[in-house]
Amino acid sequence: MTNPGMKCTRCRGPARHRFPSHNARFCDECLDVFFRGQVAKAIKKYRMAPPGGPMMIAVSGGKDSLAVWRALHDMGYETAGLHLDLGLGEFAAPSLAAARAMARRLGRPLHVYSFQELAGHAMEDVVRANRRNFCSVCGTMKRYWLNRLTLEHGFDTVATGHQLDDEAGRLLGNMLHFHDQYLANQWPVLEAAPGLARKIKPLCRLSEAEVRAYAKAHDLPVAQGKCPRSKGATLPYYQEAMQWLDDKMPGTMHNFYLEFLRRKQPPAPPLAGAARCASCGAPTFGQECTACRLLAKTEAWKQALWERGHATDA
Amino acid sequence: MTNPGMKCTRCRGPARHRFPSHNARFCDECLDVFFRGQVAKAIKKYRMAPPGGPMMIAVSGGKDSLAVWRALHDMGYETAGLHLDLGLGEFAAPSLAAARAMARRLGRPLHVYSFQELAGHAMEDVVRANRRNFCSVCGTMKRYWLNRLTLEHGFDTVATGHQLDDEAGRLLGNMLHFHDQYLANQWPVLEAAPGLARKIKPLCRLSEAEVRAYAKAHDLPVAQGKCPRSKGATLPYYQEAMQWLDDKMPGTMHNFYLEFLRRKQPPAPPLAGAARCASCGAPTFGQECTACRLLAKTEAWKQALWERGHATDA
Repeated sequence: MTNPGMKCTRCRGPARHRFPSHNARFCDECLDVFFRGQVAKAIKKYRMAPPGGPMMIAVSGGKDSLAVWRALHDMGYETAGLHLDLGLGEFAAPSLAAARAMARRLGRPLHVYSFQELAGHAMEDVVRANRRNFCSVCGTMKRYWLNRLTLEHGFDTVATGHQLDDEAGRLLGNMLHFHDQYLANQWPVLEAAPGLARKIKPLCRLSEAEVRAYAKAHDLPVAQGKCPRSKGATLPYYQEAMQWLDDKMPGTMHNFYLEFLRRKQPPAPPLAGAARCASCGAPTFGQECTACRLLAKTEAWKQALWERGHATDA
Repeated sequence: MTNPGMKCTRCRGPARHRFPSHNARFCDECLDVFFRGQVAKAIKKYRMAPPGGPMMIAVSGGKDSLAVWRALHDMGYETAGLHLDLGLGEFAAPSLAAARAMARRLGRPLHVYSFQELAGHAMEDVVRANRRNFCSVCGTMKRYWLNRLTLEHGFDTVATGHQLDDEAGRLLGNMLHFHDQYLANQWPVLEAAPGLARKIKPLCRLSEAEVRAYAKAHDLPVAQGKCPRSKGATLPYYQEAMQWLDDKMPGTMHNFYLEFLRRKQPPAPPLAGAARCASCGAPTFGQECTACRLLAKTEAWKQALWERGHATDA
């Protein structure tokens, strides 16, 4: 990344980071200014939150979540971290350690929950019982608990570390398949509603490379490695294709996603006119919310397994 | 491509070609049936031409143009070839030789023209005089002369060898940049209008890999090599990204392009309500058509060069 003699676009001092999509080079200090500027712009432009307001941060321990926490904290937001231990093998311990290290460094509280304790089942079992794609079940469950715990801790907003590459990759996938409903709902803010915290993506204007550089500049205690269960996920393909195009034609990804937002109306409030889940009270259009249905099916599946086990014993 | 013991999806004999996007394997004979079936479907579905009608084929000498010529000829269309020698270096001679060999093999006429003789200028000079991107100038000129010569030879339809990868790559580029006007006009048929031949793309449902296999199965006398002036063109990037995604998720490209067509209305007739070019009579919205403007500017540029040369002599 470094190039001897490369000058910072902002202060003309020695630069350490180069971003072809912006045709910019930055030293650590100016990268920080640029980074926070982009976060501030996203927050203001898409009306994510009032200045300095309280915010829960979904902290997986990866670079994106640590970066968004660090930036929002530095910008004066009153933050707390929320870490969900998904119990996904050897990935779990370093992720938790990274979240803890970050909380210590910022002097902010970190709330840690185990998915298995919350749900009463391991994620593996929920997936097996429902015979669905791993990422789809895990994503549903994560969103459900992040929302519920954010509200239970008295916050009305939860920020995630999704960055430009995530959003542009998702947009590309949705466009290639003409997923009209997903396209209509793709937006960096999902508004709050009764029973729903506001979900915001303050890094949506920053590329993965920019977030990586920021994490490096601040020496954030990032957990390495990637999810052991992500095999078979298609989103990374769209992201990789998008990054390749951006490599060949710098700026393509940035323009693609931001132009999409520029041309679009914010989506209607989510689950407007929804009823409440009979089990947990979360807003839903059905009798029970998706999370409760997945868990009820897991319960029944375990019961059947247990009964079959006893039948064999008899 | 071959795999010992691989069976043809259609006849269960030994297969030679494998197409993951269709989850199909074919022997040479069944590939031919499949190929002509897809061409017939494209012609019928997008109302390209009446059965057996006369058609001019734009023959560059590459595999796509030879394949479309071969297939349309075999399907009973009354074809003639049109080859435009663009004078682009060592690429020119083998291209012309391939077109000639194909015409001999089919026993059909081939009309050969030199761009330089038609236009009075070399393509290089037109590009230099107009200070525009090479592919853009060359494309404009090629379309202009293909149209004009098709009509002059008494045909009302010209077929080109554009295939699925060309069209899907172009679509991806247009979508990523939200080129609304190009998106509105992207369609495998451009209707005829006064002064305009109908342009059709009978291979639009067949991937580059399928066309390559067809050319191989028929041992078509394909000209190798690629245009020496295509450097800097962006379309190949979109095609490559698209092909990569299709490699990872077979069928992605096919579904993307055909679903785009399925959801779309055919575009309005081109240049509806247009006037006629003051120089050549081609339909245009301006005083002169784009081709005549490019050539007039080239003329003026050469004149200026000549005058400057004489001024120095004096």
